[in-house]
Amino acid sequence: MDIYLDNSATTRPCREATEAVKLAMEEAYGNPSSMHIKGFDAEKLVKGSKDTIASTLKCDPKELVFTSGGTESNNLALIGGARARRRSGLHIITTSVEHPSVLETVAYLEEEGFRVTRLPVDQYGRVTAGQVREALTDDTIIVSCMMVNNELGTREPVEEIGSMLKKERQDVLFHVDAVQGYGKYMIRPKECGIDLLSVSGHKIHGPKGIGFLYVRNGVILRPIIFGGGQQKGLRSGTENVPGIAGLAAAVKHTYSDFEAGIERMYSLKSLLEEGLAAVEGAVVNSIPGKGGAPHIVNVSFEGIRSEVLLHALEDKGVYVSSGSACASNHPGLSHVLLAAGIPKQRIEGTLRFSLDTETTREEIDAALAAVAEAVPFYRRLRRR
Amino acid sequence: MDIYLDNSATTRPCREATEAVKLAMEEAYGNPSSMHIKGFDAEKLVKGSKDTIASTLKCDPKELVFTSGGTESNNLALIGGARARRRSGLHIITTSVEHPSVLETVAYLEEEGFRVTRLPVDQYGRVTAGQVREALTDDTIIVSCMMVNNELGTREPVEEIGSMLKKERQDVLFHVDAVQGYGKYMIRPKECGIDLLSVSGHKIHGPKGIGFLYVRNGVILRPIIFGGGQQKGLRSGTENVPGIAGLAAAVKHTYSDFEAGIERMYSLKSLLEEGLAAVEGAVVNSIPGKGGAPHIVNVSFEGIRSEVLLHALEDKGVYVSSGSACASNHPGLSHVLLAAGIPKQRIEGTLRFSLDTETTREEIDAALAAVAEAVPFYRRLRRR
Repeated sequence: MDIYLDNSATTRPCREATEAVKLAMEEAYGNPSSMHIKGFDAEKLVKGSKDTIASTLKCDPKELVFTSGGTESNNLALIGGARARRRSGLHIITTSVEHPSVLETVAYLEEEGFRVTRLPVDQYGRVTAGQVREALTDDTIIVSCMMVNNELGTREPVEEIGSMLKKERQDVLFHVDAVQGYGKYMIRPKECGIDLLSVSGHKIHGPKGIGFLYVRNGVILRPIIFGGGQQKGLRSGTENVPGIAGLAAAVKHTYSDFEAGIERMYSLKSLLEEGLAAVEGAVVNSIPGKGGAPHIVNVSFEGIRSEVLLHALEDKGVYVSSGSACASNHPGLSHVLLAAGIPKQRIEGTLRFSLDTETTREEIDAALAAVAEAVPFYRRLRRR
Repeated sequence: MDIYLDNSATTRPCREATEAVKLAMEEAYGNPSSMHIKGFDAEKLVKGSKDTIASTLKCDPKELVFTSGGTESNNLALIGGARARRRSGLHIITTSVEHPSVLETVAYLEEEGFRVTRLPVDQYGRVTAGQVREALTDDTIIVSCMMVNNELGTREPVEEIGSMLKKERQDVLFHVDAVQGYGKYMIRPKECGIDLLSVSGHKIHGPKGIGFLYVRNGVILRPIIFGGGQQKGLRSGTENVPGIAGLAAAVKHTYSDFEAGIERMYSLKSLLEEGLAAVEGAVVNSIPGKGGAPHIVNVSFEGIRSEVLLHALEDKGVYVSSGSACASNHPGLSHVLLAAGIPKQRIEGTLRFSLDTETTREEIDAALAAVAEAVPFYRRLRRR
């Protein structure tokens, strides 16, 4: 039995997404820029997909720019935003627990002459709107804060930050990396003062290689990829029509019967949290219940290396992460857990379990049984 | 009957590519960065795809970087190459007939302080290795020249340019935009002195949203998209596994029974050229026969606007381009035809026909019959 509990790394595409991709490849294969009906059909599919996505954000379909994924969306928001506002200022505020596609991008912007403040966080990886306010300077041009931390599942107060900025500093662009938040929450960028919002397809049962950036009407970005002027010049390159169609299908799937699915995930997450906390020497690092997203539980097992436990669980058909997938290309300890003040020794024994709406009670029980069996065994092994 | 003769804008994915995408979405859905078997399976698929592609270029699979398409490949080669070599010099040489994803990118690099020489071309849009040699200065860092012009089909002398640079200026990076050349020619970057080579999936019956950049071992580029450090840090972002699998399937399809397919395209292209040239008031702008690629015929019909003729042919089920798809987002006359010295009036009546290996003799005959019928009709209409 395969128990896939690594949905924050990537999800299995839903049937609707796979079908939509296949159909687009077979039937809407034209280039949206072509002037004949084959181009028109492809363009119509792109437009319809935008409508579907826009309805979940209550935004104008024209506010969506398709990208190759969450990483490119974050790069476009930050580099494109910073370059467009360079004359207004050079200061960027973000947090110390962002995804590498934000942290590495702002590090690059420092080379280009921008200044970056990385806010510290509490034990759950949280910042406050007050911290952001205090960090604002006259030449702050962008604030970037993730909606849900990909390692801990912690929900950042993006609504409060957005309201504060809307009230006090309308000149500052507010970017939210919602790669782990979209599909888990109803997001209304306009109500929250969010100017830019990054989303990835493959985290919500859509295809890999596609994502989008919401860009509020009126916000000006410089492109980071230059060429034929597609997508109003903001993102050149022939549109990934099948990817876009697959993404829209996944969005529709994700946001239908939404509330019930999320509630079910929260109860399974609670079960998992409680079961894990009951294991000897285990510490749940994630904030309990609704302080975190419905799908992520981060837990440390003292005295066991996470790789060992990960592979022990794999042998029992349970698939989880050690840290986050994106971080696995960087050696070294999780910057998120370090920022949350978790001791090094505990970090070394940390696993991330991540659910989706298809996860069942039986799977959670089986995963817990596998953990309960493996942990004492490997701990004994180590003590010898 | 649908007669799709717009294969330079985009191709219909082959059955193998669509199947490979579907299979990857259903079965290899893991994140290649994940440490368990689901990640390993996805990574294996990526590696196998690289092997397939590398075998067609006789290169090391490690020399391939996957991107979201030809546009991103060109951006990565030029911006990434220029930034990495900034200390060696600021001069870039290219031609005046490149695709917008090269021309707009070098225009951006001018803003960053680089100097760009855009070489003039002959009546077919051709440069010579001699022109490149004369343009070289002490601080030249990159030469970028396309393999096949996307509007005219003209074959640029990239082998001669590469040999000359290899002999005289090994310090200069040589980038070739092979978006219209790969799949039509056997390319051996190492034998030709090519350091960087851009390819797009959807021009060779692969999926949209995927492409690659060949980066010769030893060449250092700066990334243009920052994040989790995937693809040895050169292109962050979760790999588009289904797109990569689909691309490899299309590559395999394209390069099997290769020579015969190309020969067949050349004979059909000749038929088309002759048939078009026989139409009253028609001028074929493409270089005849093997001076051009096997798939593109560019032709002007004096006294008729290309849009009118394009839609007249569309009514008869024949799909062609007016200029190139990428340029259609830019208003104004084709920069390629202008650079080739074609008079404005003739440019306004220009169509591009582009074939693929599936194109049949019957389709060419039917397309020619449609042109022969439409041209006199619309010319008479206009004269009234």
